[in-house]
Amino acid sequence: MNGAEALIATLQSCGVDVCFANPGTSEMQLVAAIDGQEGMRSVLGLFEGVVTGAADGYGRMADKPAATLLHLGPGMANGNAYIHNARRAFTPMINLVGDHATYHLHYNAPLTSDVAGVARPMSDWVRTARSPRDLALAGAEAHAASLVWPGQIATVIVPADHAWSDGAAVAEPHAAQPAPQVAASVIAEAAEALRNSEGPMALFLGGRAVREESLYHAGQIAAATGAKLISETFSARLQRGAGRVAAERLPYPGESAAEVLKDYKTIVFCGCEPPVSFFAYPGKPSWLSPEGANLVCLSSAREDAPAALAALVRALGAGDVQPTLQPAFAAECTEGKLDPMKIGATLAQLMPENAIVSDEGATAGFAAFPMTAGAPKHDWLMVTGGAIGQGMPVAVGAAVACPDRKVIALQADGGGMYTNQALWTMARENLDITTIILNNGSYAILNIELARVGVANPGPKALSMLSLRDPDIQWAQMAESMGVPARRATTAAEFREALEWALSHKGPRLVEAVI
Amino acid sequence: MNGAEALIATLQSCGVDVCFANPGTSEMQLVAAIDGQEGMRSVLGLFEGVVTGAADGYGRMADKPAATLLHLGPGMANGNAYIHNARRAFTPMINLVGDHATYHLHYNAPLTSDVAGVARPMSDWVRTARSPRDLALAGAEAHAASLVWPGQIATVIVPADHAWSDGAAVAEPHAAQPAPQVAASVIAEAAEALRNSEGPMALFLGGRAVREESLYHAGQIAAATGAKLISETFSARLQRGAGRVAAERLPYPGESAAEVLKDYKTIVFCGCEPPVSFFAYPGKPSWLSPEGANLVCLSSAREDAPAALAALVRALGAGDVQPTLQPAFAAECTEGKLDPMKIGATLAQLMPENAIVSDEGATAGFAAFPMTAGAPKHDWLMVTGGAIGQGMPVAVGAAVACPDRKVIALQADGGGMYTNQALWTMARENLDITTIILNNGSYAILNIELARVGVANPGPKALSMLSLRDPDIQWAQMAESMGVPARRATTAAEFREALEWALSHKGPRLVEAVI
Repeated sequence: MNGAEALIATLQSCGVDVCFANPGTSEMQLVAAIDGQEGMRSVLGLFEGVVTGAADGYGRMADKPAATLLHLGPGMANGNAYIHNARRAFTPMINLVGDHATYHLHYNAPLTSDVAGVARPMSDWVRTARSPRDLALAGAEAHAASLVWPGQIATVIVPADHAWSDGAAVAEPHAAQPAPQVAASVIAEAAEALRNSEGPMALFLGGRAVREESLYHAGQIAAATGAKLISETFSARLQRGAGRVAAERLPYPGESAAEVLKDYKTIVFCGCEPPVSFFAYPGKPSWLSPEGANLVCLSSAREDAPAALAALVRALGAGDVQPTLQPAFAAECTEGKLDPMKIGATLAQLMPENAIVSDEGATAGFAAFPMTAGAPKHDWLMVTGGAIGQGMPVAVGAAVACPDRKVIALQADGGGMYTNQALWTMARENLDITTIILNNGSYAILNIELARVGVANPGPKALSMLSLRDPDIQWAQMAESMGVPARRATTAAEFREALEWALSHKGPRLVEAVI
Repeated sequence: MNGAEALIATLQSCGVDVCFANPGTSEMQLVAAIDGQEGMRSVLGLFEGVVTGAADGYGRMADKPAATLLHLGPGMANGNAYIHNARRAFTPMINLVGDHATYHLHYNAPLTSDVAGVARPMSDWVRTARSPRDLALAGAEAHAASLVWPGQIATVIVPADHAWSDGAAVAEPHAAQPAPQVAASVIAEAAEALRNSEGPMALFLGGRAVREESLYHAGQIAAATGAKLISETFSARLQRGAGRVAAERLPYPGESAAEVLKDYKTIVFCGCEPPVSFFAYPGKPSWLSPEGANLVCLSSAREDAPAALAALVRALGAGDVQPTLQPAFAAECTEGKLDPMKIGATLAQLMPENAIVSDEGATAGFAAFPMTAGAPKHDWLMVTGGAIGQGMPVAVGAAVACPDRKVIALQADGGGMYTNQALWTMARENLDITTIILNNGSYAILNIELARVGVANPGPKALSMLSLRDPDIQWAQMAESMGVPARRATTAAEFREALEWALSHKGPRLVEAVI
């Protein structure tokens, strides 16, 4: 058994059964090993950002890692932006990165680079295999590292000679490490803070605390104490919709976020840190929580936030309290000119129960979000790390993880251009994804940001850097060039018709919404 | 004057007048500064790989740096693959990477990452500005660093608050550092080696030694001594065509390269190191030069190879020798089924004098290359670092650097999918580029590499990882979706007609060659 075979068999014995891949010469032995491993699915992406974004979407939905297969330093570099997002989403992920054979490295061949150096800034855990036999051990360790609660990025660097040399053996999976529990004294402190607040209270939720069960517990606490529920601006996986407990999403602009928080005297954070401004702006504060408020960290992202919430319910004696549930609703506004709110309203009307929405809608996504609050139960996946272009790749991974659920990619045009290759993978794998391109011909958010950082009178050269016009991108045509049937909609009525068409098919479809 | 304004004005006073950009919020002040700076052109790429690949193409043709504008760690990461290639091409390049405001970093906002850590593996020189005033000094230093002979990657990290704060001033350009000269004793040693070889001799050329004038000198040496001229497999910028001195290009497969070199008793290297195998393969040597041969390093890439060659001509008394020049020729084979050789032959017939070919044709490019040896004089730009996807971005940069020359991107489909967004920039800037997509529906080279690394009987899962079929990509349609008029050719006659059409227009055109 060669090193590659032992590594892949080890990963499979750990329960890893999907590999998103863009291999090159130095990974051919790993391709062969996957080929020979019954039950290990491989999914090709035509650019590494598709590969790593897909692994992020997969990990968020499966709560277990997919593997990726990347080609040396440049391949890892190409995947790093969405590895960054995945890390910020606490997604479990295992990257396998080929490197030159150990004895070839010192020749400094053209593709030689510091692969570990490329991996380190975006990975939580990096390890280079030391021998063919060590490769499988590294795989088992990477699997364990990827599952350090609630999820980490583990990267294994695979020298080509370790992959192709014999004498390797399958390694044992490591025992799962339990999620770190919050101390009883911290639970008591949070209960005390909510019981004795000197004014309005909020329970601020993030990370694993925005899944259905935790939200239910949060709803019980809210009903028992009067605390308001707020969720972080960008959640990795927010479970929402009619019949679930809803939280108010913290707005993106720092000023608006600070306005939402300003009157609270007590804020209990669960599953995340206190929020900060996404960027700094001249003369505007980075820290958003009100001065003088009692800020209590019930659980960080790295602790067992769901268990902490459940314990807080018990501490408050709220176990029998009925929380307020989100009522069903879908606004009727599907006539006239198309805009992001109408897109959200139409989505709320048409999306099936249990859908998964990969939202990289940027400015348009913010508008669509509240309109879908009362849609049938669904999961909403957001851009946690700010690197644009993940919307369609994350949809790919979610669809691979959940083949029985409809996936909807709500994709802004600017980010969509980063990784349009994801459409090809949707077609090849016949993934059940409806992509909605929010085509406003602009990095719209930057037109806002330009003013917010203090640029008062931008000239044509500056504005042209924020524009996707001249030429306009024909998204429906682009999708069809990669095998995804597509329609273009310029009115609300056309959009509704196109979305009905797309959702009624099991398989990839794209709707270009011109807004 | 704020830091951004001082930085941009400093770069312009150094002679930098083009910025390839994909900015975000943290770079808005730099966008505004470029906007306000007369004579600084900005070119938008819809993905950072387009930006850095274009800066590489620009630097190769202009022999001076363009600036790039990249958004924090993920933006830099997205650009790193082609920065790697540019570094291996010794291209001068200045990257400006925004970072959070200094006081915002410790809040660990979503886009926070170790930007310097991301920059380091692919940059020769990295520096974070220390104050608004220091930003312009960093720019002047970066310019000097980028021009360390023959070119380097210089990356400046720009904290947002240093960009927007006042109190900065334009910095003085540094005096240019001369290229390191080769010692007279080394010239004498090389002359001696060529005079007294115990058998066949070769002069092996790379880096700056494959430009027209150096090749002429090499041709004089060859004529005077009988040495064979060989050029490295992947040159940054090879000047060739009818009327120039030609060198034999070292083949890509290590076995073939070793076969070419095996009988030489003396090899003099100029502008590069002795060649090594691109990858390692089980049981095959990495080192390609014959054992026992006299290997003389006349000049490394980092020394003044052109001057060393000129000095060697003098040392050999070959200043009046007439070298053998490449005769004009273009094969007549433009009927029947299309293949890469016919593409090369047609190109040789139709390409105008002084064209620039950006060759990322991979397997198909290797076949087209010899067919164009006798075409009108042209520059041939290759993938120096092995990261695929640079062909179209490099063409973008070459066209910006040389607006009066026809640029031809010879682009394999696999690499082309990495950076198809480059087509949009070609359309927006109305660049005079004819892109030829070599559409074989495959990472063809990997089918060869799979066998070379010892995988004997690949199954369908492995083969599907190397295939771009199912679905087939419709390149002409994709190009038109981004505003580039396109035609599809499936026979040699159709290809000839389409190429005539494309080359006859000044502006971007794409020809999809189905092979």
